[in-house]
Amino acid sequence: MIVTTRQTRFDSLSLDCGETLAPVDVAFETYGTLNESKSNAILILHALSGDAHAAGISHETGKPGWWDNMIGPGKGFDTEKYFVICSNVLGGCRGTTGPSSINPSTGCPYAMSFPVITIPDMVRLQKMVVDHLGIERLLAVSGGSMGGMQALEWAVSYPDRVAAAIPIATTARHSAQQIAFNEVGRQAIMADPDWNEGNYYATKPPARGLAVARMVGHITYMSDESMREKFGRRLREKEAYGFDFSIDFEVESYLRYRGSQFVERFDANSYLYITKAMDYFDLTNGGGSLGHVFEKTTARFLVISFTSDWLYPSYQSLEIVNALRSRNKDVAYCELPSNYGHDAFLVEVGEQTELVRGFLARTYKERT
Amino acid sequence: MIVTTRQTRFDSLSLDCGETLAPVDVAFETYGTLNESKSNAILILHALSGDAHAAGISHETGKPGWWDNMIGPGKGFDTEKYFVICSNVLGGCRGTTGPSSINPSTGCPYAMSFPVITIPDMVRLQKMVVDHLGIERLLAVSGGSMGGMQALEWAVSYPDRVAAAIPIATTARHSAQQIAFNEVGRQAIMADPDWNEGNYYATKPPARGLAVARMVGHITYMSDESMREKFGRRLREKEAYGFDFSIDFEVESYLRYRGSQFVERFDANSYLYITKAMDYFDLTNGGGSLGHVFEKTTARFLVISFTSDWLYPSYQSLEIVNALRSRNKDVAYCELPSNYGHDAFLVEVGEQTELVRGFLARTYKERT
Repeated sequence: MIVTTRQTRFDSLSLDCGETLAPVDVAFETYGTLNESKSNAILILHALSGDAHAAGISHETGKPGWWDNMIGPGKGFDTEKYFVICSNVLGGCRGTTGPSSINPSTGCPYAMSFPVITIPDMVRLQKMVVDHLGIERLLAVSGGSMGGMQALEWAVSYPDRVAAAIPIATTARHSAQQIAFNEVGRQAIMADPDWNEGNYYATKPPARGLAVARMVGHITYMSDESMREKFGRRLREKEAYGFDFSIDFEVESYLRYRGSQFVERFDANSYLYITKAMDYFDLTNGGGSLGHVFEKTTARFLVISFTSDWLYPSYQSLEIVNALRSRNKDVAYCELPSNYGHDAFLVEVGEQTELVRGFLARTYKERT
Repeated sequence: MIVTTRQTRFDSLSLDCGETLAPVDVAFETYGTLNESKSNAILILHALSGDAHAAGISHETGKPGWWDNMIGPGKGFDTEKYFVICSNVLGGCRGTTGPSSINPSTGCPYAMSFPVITIPDMVRLQKMVVDHLGIERLLAVSGGSMGGMQALEWAVSYPDRVAAAIPIATTARHSAQQIAFNEVGRQAIMADPDWNEGNYYATKPPARGLAVARMVGHITYMSDESMREKFGRRLREKEAYGFDFSIDFEVESYLRYRGSQFVERFDANSYLYITKAMDYFDLTNGGGSLGHVFEKTTARFLVISFTSDWLYPSYQSLEIVNALRSRNKDVAYCELPSNYGHDAFLVEVGEQTELVRGFLARTYKERT
């Protein structure tokens, strides 16, 4: 399945901060075929560092999509049955307007003059894509981590436009610890002199700061167990400690590699804006009960979390589930056993596939 | 209790890396009175960012010691009964020779020419202090975190010199996750151009990098629960999100403050060397069973861990306890309930005091 990322432009987008972006480009991909009644569309929502290329092999890069193990013919999101859409989020750096895009009023990249964005802003732009594709009602919205926040926001903001929501390894609002980890990443970027208040597009990006931010991220995406299984205390290409500050342990080598690799494909300012949107995210808008928020939702919910995910622990998924149950909503919850930590939503294909397949089939049967 | 830090100099110290440091200064404090038989001495061992000022009010700064709630008249380590010693570790920056000390052969600070050190090296220097004080056998060695590693090393390296060991919130070897968090801190420091390969003593220190390292540290010292209780999603001096990159949440403000404060009192190169020593630490020296390591120990052990400490989780303490039990050693283990995460060993005074007091009294009665 060779896929090409498409792009579309909208005249303008009103943001929660009060500003308006004009115009706004969105990069998106689709897989499978939209049926005649347009009732088989599923919107996939990506996490912090993802992009529109969720499935198939990219025509441009030759690389598989970030959720290719879950989306495709015969897979959990079965493209023989469903029409699957994924777009790069607002504020991103992979084809959708973000801080690295040219501000038409200046002819220069927005950089830090880009308006601060929120998860609801991202969802508002996604709805324009869905409208653009002529889809009245999505069969489902689904994503993990920040993608799960968007799935929740969709179900709450557009209750008539979503038949089902599958938020995975996510939360209805960022905790102090989650904010803290994001803040460390932002501080690492902003501490890099190459960041230069965000104005690095004509010079060189804050590669060292962004790499450190990514390293922190990677530790939080894994679990103590998965790191022990993957690395243990194994030394890197030597038999004894080097007694110096070069790389001793495999885990150090892995982190440095992932950090430096990330710099090649991600914009540091996008990292700032997107993590800030995650931190601002609070389905209750800072007040009222979560149950109250879900009152007008009509979607069926499948909530999934993973036992070893300490970044988005199961209790946060349970808060969502309990709030939905308090309002008598149709919700299924599954905590899947996994050692992979937060990364589990990307790698634990087996049981996730079964859960998603069954849930989508039932939704399609009952709701279309 | 006003206390003054003392300093003593030793001619030389042989290190695990094969090099010799000469001379070596050690800063230390003592509290209470050494009895005539010199049988009531307790050595307290500090963690990564600690120093010799463990108790009392510093004559120089007016500040209480880092474990003042546990050490003093009538406290857990009762200075009316015991003679308590605490020294700054080798590689530190608070009076003991470290990378910021002057290398006598060049007249300049060692900086990164300082030899790489290990936990056993630190302990070897502490033994010289104990010898210097004329103490044949310590009643107890105790410390939390990296201090606990030193306590274990003491019991294993000098079995005849230690009657009891109280390792708290610690491990017999750093896990991949623990190495990873330290590595991120080191990378943050080394990514700061002001670090300048360690040669910043004549210019300005890598304040931004060290602050980021400290921020990462602080998150790992707290727990998800304690951060929620302390900060939640409370906003900093405003009623709504700022929609900018200034401080929104209290947790951000706290981390930035602690990061910038740390820079005032700690040397970045010391941070590199000491974290590396922690990562190298492995009581088994990379081979053999932990039980085998404890075979020759004669000390009684009191091992303490805390329920919410995810940085040094209880299973690591249990490994120590099980290894000791496998060799029929005298060991008591207590997992104390606490929400404070790794910081618990510094703040959970109540139950720790009872445990330590009883254990020391019994040891003093039975072993002296």
